[in-house]
Amino acid sequence: MQLQVLLVAGTHGNEINGIFLFEQWKRSPFLINTHGIKTFTVIGNPEAKKAGKRYIHQDLNRSFQEKSFLSINSSNFEVLRANELLNIYGEAGENPCQIVLDFHTTTASMGSCLVVYGRRNADLALASLIQNKLGLPIYLHESDQKQTGFLVESWPCGLVVEIGPIGQSLLNSKIILQTKLILENFMEQIHHIKNLNLFFPDKLIVHRHIKSIDFPRDKEGNIDGYVHSLRQSKDWQELKKNDELFSKFSGETIRFDENKPYVPVFINEAAYAEKNIAMSLTKRELWDLKKDWKQSLIDLVHQK
Amino acid sequence: MQLQVLLVAGTHGNEINGIFLFEQWKRSPFLINTHGIKTFTVIGNPEAKKAGKRYIHQDLNRSFQEKSFLSINSSNFEVLRANELLNIYGEAGENPCQIVLDFHTTTASMGSCLVVYGRRNADLALASLIQNKLGLPIYLHESDQKQTGFLVESWPCGLVVEIGPIGQSLLNSKIILQTKLILENFMEQIHHIKNLNLFFPDKLIVHRHIKSIDFPRDKEGNIDGYVHSLRQSKDWQELKKNDELFSKFSGETIRFDENKPYVPVFINEAAYAEKNIAMSLTKRELWDLKKDWKQSLIDLVHQK
Repeated sequence: MQLQVLLVAGTHGNEINGIFLFEQWKRSPFLINTHGIKTFTVIGNPEAKKAGKRYIHQDLNRSFQEKSFLSINSSNFEVLRANELLNIYGEAGENPCQIVLDFHTTTASMGSCLVVYGRRNADLALASLIQNKLGLPIYLHESDQKQTGFLVESWPCGLVVEIGPIGQSLLNSKIILQTKLILENFMEQIHHIKNLNLFFPDKLIVHRHIKSIDFPRDKEGNIDGYVHSLRQSKDWQELKKNDELFSKFSGETIRFDENKPYVPVFINEAAYAEKNIAMSLTKRELWDLKKDWKQSLIDLVHQK
Repeated sequence: MQLQVLLVAGTHGNEINGIFLFEQWKRSPFLINTHGIKTFTVIGNPEAKKAGKRYIHQDLNRSFQEKSFLSINSSNFEVLRANELLNIYGEAGENPCQIVLDFHTTTASMGSCLVVYGRRNADLALASLIQNKLGLPIYLHESDQKQTGFLVESWPCGLVVEIGPIGQSLLNSKIILQTKLILENFMEQIHHIKNLNLFFPDKLIVHRHIKSIDFPRDKEGNIDGYVHSLRQSKDWQELKKNDELFSKFSGETIRFDENKPYVPVFINEAAYAEKNIAMSLTKRELWDLKKDWKQSLIDLVHQK
């Protein structure tokens, strides 16, 4: 069977730059060189896009859970949509796709980066190829029981692309072009694997998720402090003990009190305040690339 | 009767920095020096704030129209809320206020600025005082029949404060402090007028609204171009003939083709795409301050 690739944008309805790129691509088929690889582009959450919101009932990118699939008779829009996407593009779907790339934007100053969920071999191999070519940081999201059910986890191999800073529902020339660059590089990497031109690096740099921290809150649970001006927009920059995290109007500064070389990411992402996340802390690690990872990706692309 | 001032934040539910400042002020009454002036703070659209949206049914800041007030039995949330705010804080309300300051944020790079609706004497006098002290630009919104029903127009005197760039639903240290600075200066100016310490400038600089321009759109009305990278974030910077306005993926650049010294504002404000506004064009003018304007503001503050 021929490899088929799923490209998703607008999994969150107010992250619109990828959607715009897809629309332009549909009009100008030569905008992106797919190297002849069969692709499907889809708007993850078109209802939320219409409403100008992240989601209608619940975050679609937390709705790909086993327990959701049991409740197929739900009237929850995102549970239904998750099922629908899997029925159409899932491994056993009408147009079965093996690899998915899910384009997001963030209000945090993340630049362009890749997010990998868990430690699946093919994901890590693919991320290493893109990192090797474009230098993008990789955020490894794992060990976070409060956040599960991500879209890409329902496909054999999948990465999230996050690009920021950009406000919600905002179109921006720079963000569109960053999206395009990653999409083109992704197609190029898949093309190389198809042709067994293997340019894997020896190592990859991973920012491994350790934990998330919340905003300062009062007794009623209301946010009563904000990200310190010295921390705002300092994603990927290592925290030292006593570095400023939050400010309060009382004059109080809340500081980082651990003696660990953590690296913060998703600092002040607007959509995460409701998830009680002001930023996430990661550990920066240099990993050897395993032979098994490469083999998994090659097998997936060259599937029988 | 004693002067009473209404301070509004969150007229758009996803513009949250002013709301945060008000909450902190409630906890720490000495945060803002009101100089003993009686103030009321209110969240304009608390339902939209809860929903994380600009509005529920329609833009509250376009709902203060005579025809809205006729439809008091409406189930439109914003029409009801506009009536409610007027019943409580309007000139003839329970807590009658004479002056209103309405705090907004924008995704455009407007810095801090004041918006004046029409040419009411007291508005222009008050804006001139704040401009004289803080140097803020003034955007005079007028002659725009498509946009009417602004909140401040329903009070004898009122200004909108716009601060950006900031994404929707995002809290930011810099924006909060800019909000606080303008609020403090506003209270100080009112205090001076109460004491007849009159520091009016001789002139004020006004950016007078001429027209708004839309994004490039295809035949179906979909946006098919974005603000050119050389125009993005260049609010308040004069356009010259042939300057770049928009980019399209076809390679086309849409340029400014008029030979007029227009100054663009609200470039790429996320909430204006649905209003078919990519930016507004203004003319920068230096106006003499009229004696009548000062007298109107003085009379309002010293009302019988």
